[in-house]
Amino acid sequence: MIDFQTNPAAYKHWTLSFEGPVAYLTMDVNPEGTLVPGYELKMNSYDLGVDIELYDAVQRLRFEHPEVGSVVLRSGKERIFCAGANIRMLGKSSHAHKVNFCKFTNETRNSIEDATEYSRQRYICAVNGTAAGGGYELALATDHIMLIDDGNASVSLPEVPLLAVLPGTGGLTRVTDKRKVRRDRADIFCSIEEGVRGSRAVDWRLVDEVVPGSRFADVVAERAKDFAAASDRPTDAKGISLTPLKREVGPDTVIYPHVRVDIDRARRVATITLMGPETAAPADVAAVAAQGADFWPLALAREFDDALLHLRTNETEIGTLIFKTLGDPKAAVDYDRLMADNAENWLVREILLYWKRTLKRVDLSSRTLVTLVEPGSCYAGVLAELIFAADRSFMLDGQFEGDNRPPARILLTGANFGPMTMSNGLTRLETRFLGEPDSVETAKGRIGDDLLAADADTLGLVTEALDDIDWEEEIRMMVEERVGYSPDALTGMEANLRFPGPETMETKIFGRLTAWQNWIFQRPNAVSDGGALKLYGTGTRPTYDHNRV
Amino acid sequence: MIDFQTNPAAYKHWTLSFEGPVAYLTMDVNPEGTLVPGYELKMNSYDLGVDIELYDAVQRLRFEHPEVGSVVLRSGKERIFCAGANIRMLGKSSHAHKVNFCKFTNETRNSIEDATEYSRQRYICAVNGTAAGGGYELALATDHIMLIDDGNASVSLPEVPLLAVLPGTGGLTRVTDKRKVRRDRADIFCSIEEGVRGSRAVDWRLVDEVVPGSRFADVVAERAKDFAAASDRPTDAKGISLTPLKREVGPDTVIYPHVRVDIDRARRVATITLMGPETAAPADVAAVAAQGADFWPLALAREFDDALLHLRTNETEIGTLIFKTLGDPKAAVDYDRLMADNAENWLVREILLYWKRTLKRVDLSSRTLVTLVEPGSCYAGVLAELIFAADRSFMLDGQFEGDNRPPARILLTGANFGPMTMSNGLTRLETRFLGEPDSVETAKGRIGDDLLAADADTLGLVTEALDDIDWEEEIRMMVEERVGYSPDALTGMEANLRFPGPETMETKIFGRLTAWQNWIFQRPNAVSDGGALKLYGTGTRPTYDHNRV
Repeated sequence: MIDFQTNPAAYKHWTLSFEGPVAYLTMDVNPEGTLVPGYELKMNSYDLGVDIELYDAVQRLRFEHPEVGSVVLRSGKERIFCAGANIRMLGKSSHAHKVNFCKFTNETRNSIEDATEYSRQRYICAVNGTAAGGGYELALATDHIMLIDDGNASVSLPEVPLLAVLPGTGGLTRVTDKRKVRRDRADIFCSIEEGVRGSRAVDWRLVDEVVPGSRFADVVAERAKDFAAASDRPTDAKGISLTPLKREVGPDTVIYPHVRVDIDRARRVATITLMGPETAAPADVAAVAAQGADFWPLALAREFDDALLHLRTNETEIGTLIFKTLGDPKAAVDYDRLMADNAENWLVREILLYWKRTLKRVDLSSRTLVTLVEPGSCYAGVLAELIFAADRSFMLDGQFEGDNRPPARILLTGANFGPMTMSNGLTRLETRFLGEPDSVETAKGRIGDDLLAADADTLGLVTEALDDIDWEEEIRMMVEERVGYSPDALTGMEANLRFPGPETMETKIFGRLTAWQNWIFQRPNAVSDGGALKLYGTGTRPTYDHNRV
Repeated sequence: MIDFQTNPAAYKHWTLSFEGPVAYLTMDVNPEGTLVPGYELKMNSYDLGVDIELYDAVQRLRFEHPEVGSVVLRSGKERIFCAGANIRMLGKSSHAHKVNFCKFTNETRNSIEDATEYSRQRYICAVNGTAAGGGYELALATDHIMLIDDGNASVSLPEVPLLAVLPGTGGLTRVTDKRKVRRDRADIFCSIEEGVRGSRAVDWRLVDEVVPGSRFADVVAERAKDFAAASDRPTDAKGISLTPLKREVGPDTVIYPHVRVDIDRARRVATITLMGPETAAPADVAAVAAQGADFWPLALAREFDDALLHLRTNETEIGTLIFKTLGDPKAAVDYDRLMADNAENWLVREILLYWKRTLKRVDLSSRTLVTLVEPGSCYAGVLAELIFAADRSFMLDGQFEGDNRPPARILLTGANFGPMTMSNGLTRLETRFLGEPDSVETAKGRIGDDLLAADADTLGLVTEALDDIDWEEEIRMMVEERVGYSPDALTGMEANLRFPGPETMETKIFGRLTAWQNWIFQRPNAVSDGGALKLYGTGTRPTYDHNRV
């Protein structure tokens, strides 16, 4: 089992240090500290384990360090920044592992950009040596790339010439759409092994500045200080501690205090139940800070995020995720309101941003998503997004026989109309109603109302409202239908149907570039025994099938 | 060799008929008339040969029929509109053929949309029976879908449940982005074999109207008449005849009057040389119409288009296309000016639109594109777009030894700043200068100037200006470098680097959906001997690897 939980004391590859409002995140990969045996992480190359630590560090910087306004990403090794994903690890990995590895590293790079833009922790990359492939892609995720000018240090994307695959972490798209490198220069850059160094790297927009070695550390520190000074993060607030998650993993269950996962292996279904709040919302942000990691929305987000990553990575044969909630939606509305009223508070902002990212992780799940709205459920505000994130949603109209709980209702809040945007830049309701934008306004007019099944159906908020006679049969049929279909075709279909409308750099990375990458990851030229990914480092050159497709 | 040239008298599967300003394009596929042996085209299913005729018909309607303002696409078979791409054909085809087949059908569907929007020939689809898969995708390319309401006729995209692949001709993207079907309804629609019929098809936005069988033909005719009346196409103009192309195909050459292709199999390179005008531009549009298919810009576009299709389909091992031109750029500027001055004339409009589409076909080539600007070349206006379409362009600075021709120059015209937009909605220069938009304005200020190599280099119009000492060596090195790389990785890299910036329905279809499709077309769940595409129709159900990727 791959575990996504860690903490700085357990890091093998990264160290966090602080100089007032500036954090230094230093990569010094331990070659022996691999996630699985069979390769060595030389030259600051990485595997998923290295990236899990990076993800953890980015999260902790946001929540535990309100005083940090800029983060310097740097290497602890001489003349090497980072060699990218470890090639031997890729060569030995299954297609599914490669794809999931890239997806997580992409999400983590996006979270760095999200922290820069929305948490106002601006990331700087101090490239002190070679930054190759994923190493340069890591730099690309930061807001300001500084390259040492020592005649040696360079940035490169040598995947095409060396490995017969594409850069796996958004490199091509960030080169064209973020750095806006001229296309013919991008073509040269992405097809030479040795990369680009010195002033040409600036002229071609590949880095923001080159700095002589003698002044490198000083200029980096200066930039970081200036960026931190421009941040709106509080200098006097106290961070909260992201305490270890409580989690029990059984053969077919994963149980957290606020989330439980039940796996039905025969039907390849995991049911994820999210629990509403057990206590009333605290009175103010001081009380929120005092609760810290126990504050219900944050505790729930952390557990849900961990459950999603666990299922993605450790349960690849589970094809359908069913979302359920349990609890009092009115109480959840109170939490929602508290957060909306204090959205400018640094901690509340972080919690809302974390929910936004976690819901994006839901959107990107390569599993069928079904949401069930039943008596006893808790779909209010942020949690109601699970209905709109699902491929299909079912709402019980009325009660189950022998169950006295009142009929299910949905409660919309402001959270459904702005802060929880998808990767395409639209809210889930805007995406849903692309063809009938008035429906978004109509739904907005019903904020705060108890929306019963008939209302939700009329408003177009659910796929189907069913009575208790049809309920079980309809859902069973849908799940069984899904199990009978090709998982690949479903993944491709869902990835296309979930993101209509505008494209952003994020959707281009996940939808366009990733699809090409997946395709190439399957091609014999890359992954057969004579393919480049398998032969890399052996001294034998691959022989390619030259048909152009 | 697959030949893309045909004409209505040779059609096996389509008929064209006319009722004043309305054209009827009737699909009645001859099951025996396959492109290659081994399958039967039952139920109006199609192979590439059927689509080549459709492409020809759409082209001829534009050029030969100025009086036609609307086109009805309909079936000649009872109760069947079209069953989509032939499955046995797909099951037997190579990966490369499947991908190329989908690319061409996509381009043809796009040309139907382009004709509706820009040529003002509005397409209507009269769905008289089942429209399944590619059959419904054909309907989706039209502007108005009319479904007969007879309890039988339906529209469907059954690829995922039946074949374990995605709809291959833009279906998913047109469902979400053109028809704007609500995503959960799209999910249902794309995962049921039987499709949707009657009023639900209208409610779900899958079709525009349902019409009872008794009135179907009348209402279709009425709509078509109304649409034609709203067109701006002339009622009194005379069409021009798209006469047969002169073409000689040798073992390593294809020679047309204005285009020649030279193939160097050892280096996997095809050099395409486009010839400038031999005579001065005619004085006015009447003279253009009189020249008809011999009018140089049109003749050149037709030959170039055919050469591109030939190389794509029949020369899949050729990895690099080198573009050259020969002729007097000043003379080409005169043609450009004539067309710009008469852009509103129906025929000139068609020729400009045809160049736009042909240049898009260049952008979509899954080959490395190199453009050489040498003494004697003819890069003015539209032809200069070949420089900006290339992955890399080289311009000779000065003269070759022993060659008296004056140094090469580029002549920009208005054609480089508007009419020739790429699929992403931007001009090639806007795309090129995404990171420095001022450079577009600077270049615009140089319209009409003789831009020598040094100017072109300063303006950023070419990748490199080289003197004659470096010329051959640099180009040879680049071409040989390319031959050493994986064709798949190059295809993916080029497809990503060529389309930075905004995405449109077209780029989503070619960049996003196609990449997913290509990936799934490789997966064992679809194409192994036990895969769905191979087993379809045998009665044996495929067994899937259930790992979700």
